[in-house]
Amino acid sequence: MPAMFLSPLTNHRSDEYGGSVENRARLIGELLEGTKEAVGDKAAVAIRFTPDEGYGPAGITPEVEGHAVVEMFAELPDLWDICMGGWEYDSGASRFDAEGYQEPFNAFAKTMTSKPVVGTGRFTSPDTMVSQIERGILDFIGAARPSIADPFLPWKIEEGRNEDIRECIGCNLCVASENIHAPIRCTQNPAAGEEWRRGWHPEEIAAKESEDNVLIVGAGPAGLECARALGQRGYTVHLVEADREIGGRVAFESTLPGLAEWGRVRDHRQGQIAKMKNVEVHTGSRLSADDVLNYGAEVVVLATGSSWRKDGAGFSNKSPIPGSDGANVFTPEDLRDGVNIEGPVVVFDDDHYYMGSVIAEKLRAEGNEVTLVTPLMAVSMWTDNIMERPRLIPQLLDKGIELVTDRNLANIGGNGVELACVYSGKTEHRACRSVVVVTSRLPDDGLYEELTKDPAKLEQAGINTLKAIGDSVSAGTIQTAVASGHRFARELDGPEIEDIPFRRERIALE
Amino acid sequence: MPAMFLSPLTNHRSDEYGGSVENRARLIGELLEGTKEAVGDKAAVAIRFTPDEGYGPAGITPEVEGHAVVEMFAELPDLWDICMGGWEYDSGASRFDAEGYQEPFNAFAKTMTSKPVVGTGRFTSPDTMVSQIERGILDFIGAARPSIADPFLPWKIEEGRNEDIRECIGCNLCVASENIHAPIRCTQNPAAGEEWRRGWHPEEIAAKESEDNVLIVGAGPAGLECARALGQRGYTVHLVEADREIGGRVAFESTLPGLAEWGRVRDHRQGQIAKMKNVEVHTGSRLSADDVLNYGAEVVVLATGSSWRKDGAGFSNKSPIPGSDGANVFTPEDLRDGVNIEGPVVVFDDDHYYMGSVIAEKLRAEGNEVTLVTPLMAVSMWTDNIMERPRLIPQLLDKGIELVTDRNLANIGGNGVELACVYSGKTEHRACRSVVVVTSRLPDDGLYEELTKDPAKLEQAGINTLKAIGDSVSAGTIQTAVASGHRFARELDGPEIEDIPFRRERIALE
Repeated sequence: MPAMFLSPLTNHRSDEYGGSVENRARLIGELLEGTKEAVGDKAAVAIRFTPDEGYGPAGITPEVEGHAVVEMFAELPDLWDICMGGWEYDSGASRFDAEGYQEPFNAFAKTMTSKPVVGTGRFTSPDTMVSQIERGILDFIGAARPSIADPFLPWKIEEGRNEDIRECIGCNLCVASENIHAPIRCTQNPAAGEEWRRGWHPEEIAAKESEDNVLIVGAGPAGLECARALGQRGYTVHLVEADREIGGRVAFESTLPGLAEWGRVRDHRQGQIAKMKNVEVHTGSRLSADDVLNYGAEVVVLATGSSWRKDGAGFSNKSPIPGSDGANVFTPEDLRDGVNIEGPVVVFDDDHYYMGSVIAEKLRAEGNEVTLVTPLMAVSMWTDNIMERPRLIPQLLDKGIELVTDRNLANIGGNGVELACVYSGKTEHRACRSVVVVTSRLPDDGLYEELTKDPAKLEQAGINTLKAIGDSVSAGTIQTAVASGHRFARELDGPEIEDIPFRRERIALE
Repeated sequence: MPAMFLSPLTNHRSDEYGGSVENRARLIGELLEGTKEAVGDKAAVAIRFTPDEGYGPAGITPEVEGHAVVEMFAELPDLWDICMGGWEYDSGASRFDAEGYQEPFNAFAKTMTSKPVVGTGRFTSPDTMVSQIERGILDFIGAARPSIADPFLPWKIEEGRNEDIRECIGCNLCVASENIHAPIRCTQNPAAGEEWRRGWHPEEIAAKESEDNVLIVGAGPAGLECARALGQRGYTVHLVEADREIGGRVAFESTLPGLAEWGRVRDHRQGQIAKMKNVEVHTGSRLSADDVLNYGAEVVVLATGSSWRKDGAGFSNKSPIPGSDGANVFTPEDLRDGVNIEGPVVVFDDDHYYMGSVIAEKLRAEGNEVTLVTPLMAVSMWTDNIMERPRLIPQLLDKGIELVTDRNLANIGGNGVELACVYSGKTEHRACRSVVVVTSRLPDDGLYEELTKDPAKLEQAGINTLKAIGDSVSAGTIQTAVASGHRFARELDGPEIEDIPFRRERIALE
């Protein structure tokens, strides 16, 4: 409401509350004064102020209203909290905003007031935080998402354990939880939102209850977290990865445009595991079913991941897309493997999360003409939930990627595709040399299928527990994979815990 | 799950549950048999079956799987419930589906089974219901929305009071309540969702507690419902309407393409009021402030409605659109008033509900070239909540209306408009002769402003209560207007009831 008075867009008054910026700001001053008076010495009074309305010079701008308000009421509140708006700018994803990105926006405040100033800006590492404090940009560090990823962040800094911090990757899945009306989830911290329901402490975990040796096949997000958590419990763990590098999908995805920080999912666990004498990591070793049976582990965990479908089936197409077996059709894994993809390229995104657009950006950066096609009304629809879409679409257009919406991929030929309007069914030809389909993934469950074929062999091999986790059960987000690995580690040796209802505080009716 | 077995799209099995329709239907039979066996004589077993998957011959169709399943298991369940899918087809709005529209779809069932069959199909009038029963189409009538509009529908039929039924208008606002995660609301029944919180009975209301005479200015949805409910309470009510017809916005909107049934909001109240000797309706009489002061009523209710803005301000534009003062710029009210609008026409819809598209349809039906422009990613976005958009867009395309999305109206000139891409800001010229702006509405609150200027005059005139209701306070849906009129009628002579929290059942934690 005070912002509606401050904005020339909404304030059309002709009295002492309208017109000049001093008049438009008057209500803010009165609210501060009134609150100070009412509160007296009992509490400090803070003001959270967003000096940007996002409408350019027609609305509230940092230069005009922002500076004027802080200058006018500089010493009135006990704390200034300067934040960007709307939420998608204040809590930008790592794909768009670097750590500490709000500095040019909020640095002016401390030049105008002697009162402490707090600000945010996707602070994840102690170094950046300390730098802004030392250089006098801010007095307090605001960091909600990094505290979800690691609630013990301040303690770890205090104790000098910076290397133990689970650094936020800036994926905004926490925001998605809010937007899809679900309990909060965090890619880095599987305990987030499960502290009460499951009783998970983000740092503590029960000690092991057996001397079983554990073999984990696959060092992607699920396998890594499972190894880390079982290692913390004291189990002897062998984590065996087929690739030369650990990380699984994260090893690839963190090389894609804007997703570098996602590598922290791997890096944090790699760092923790490196400190554990009871966890061994072996790379470049693809285990067969016989290898697993002869490994000598009593507990076997399969975290073998998933693969993108090449046939284009998924959300909009229940059957393979005709022509998807052609030699000019590729999947994200082909980009991972360095396959040469000739432009012009059509990227068909029926996944609607980030992969379609980052593939398009990568191919475009390599100099190709790229068209991003979606059957939905906008590209990357699901990224609305992580507040990326409003930032993403201008970026794609700016990079010269053509966006085609409301069109399904009806057919793929050697020299182009047939696109069908999802409303009218009318088709149109679009010339291209290559097609990348980003539609859905299938679990890589071959090893699990083979090992479960003959339970007698498992018994013979002394394997008392065989469990598939993560994408190899059901392809999901990196968050679901990490959580799946964590859950197995929590529940090993305990009773099987079925899905339990979410608990919430209930206020009694009068 | 049984449907995934039945569908050739999702069932790729090669065992006795895959392949032929008999095999794919096997699980349904086994589930029915198993349930019958488990339940024994204790209860009847019904099956709800949707014999259409919406993917054409590639998926479940009524002709193949539909007929086969009912034929195969004809006498197995105790009741067949045949419904269309998805929800937007099973619960079609009146804009798209006539009463009883599912008859061609579900009539086959009774030719194949001797067990009773229930079906739906937007049944609102007893005549249609009786017709389908008598002709042997259905044995039971399913009608959820009509029961929300009038929970006493079956009793009123039983008692021969058909004319008292509050017939569902098929606006699907009840569905929107679900989709926007809000308590249920109904345009026809203001008590829906308020039975417990406010203690409102859909048929009963307290008797009047004073001998005050009531003047209601404006016989739109708010005024009509207010008059009806106050009349039911026993008050002497004069309802005075400036137009020659009662109904307010509903009188106009029910003449627009597909919205005829919305006239029931007026018709039901007109019918009820006609039976009340204590309610008088006067039309064609525009009251001035002096008229109101001299009327002789102790209670004055202003239900003067709202008007569409001509300046184009609204959701996307906080300031008037340049050029909106031109002679070639029109509002929905100009269509109501029969103003001649020359094509080609650009309809700029920044309201995102139904009005933009029905105006476009009306202008198109009159032979004009019509382009429907929206700043959002799809036209009529809010109608997703009433499940209309997936039905609407093919209809608009089929009628030859051009749809332009992601474009704001930057400027209106004499020979066309400038449209600006909402992501890049790039503008493009589009030639047209007329522009209809459908953006937002402002309350018609002039009479209220004048009457409240001098409280002494009100006292002098013996007016103890002056209240504005409905759109004249804040322009909303027809539902909010009806509810506003109803609420005033409920609360007159009682204590002022502030907004109270919604109550819900709470299950104690163990």
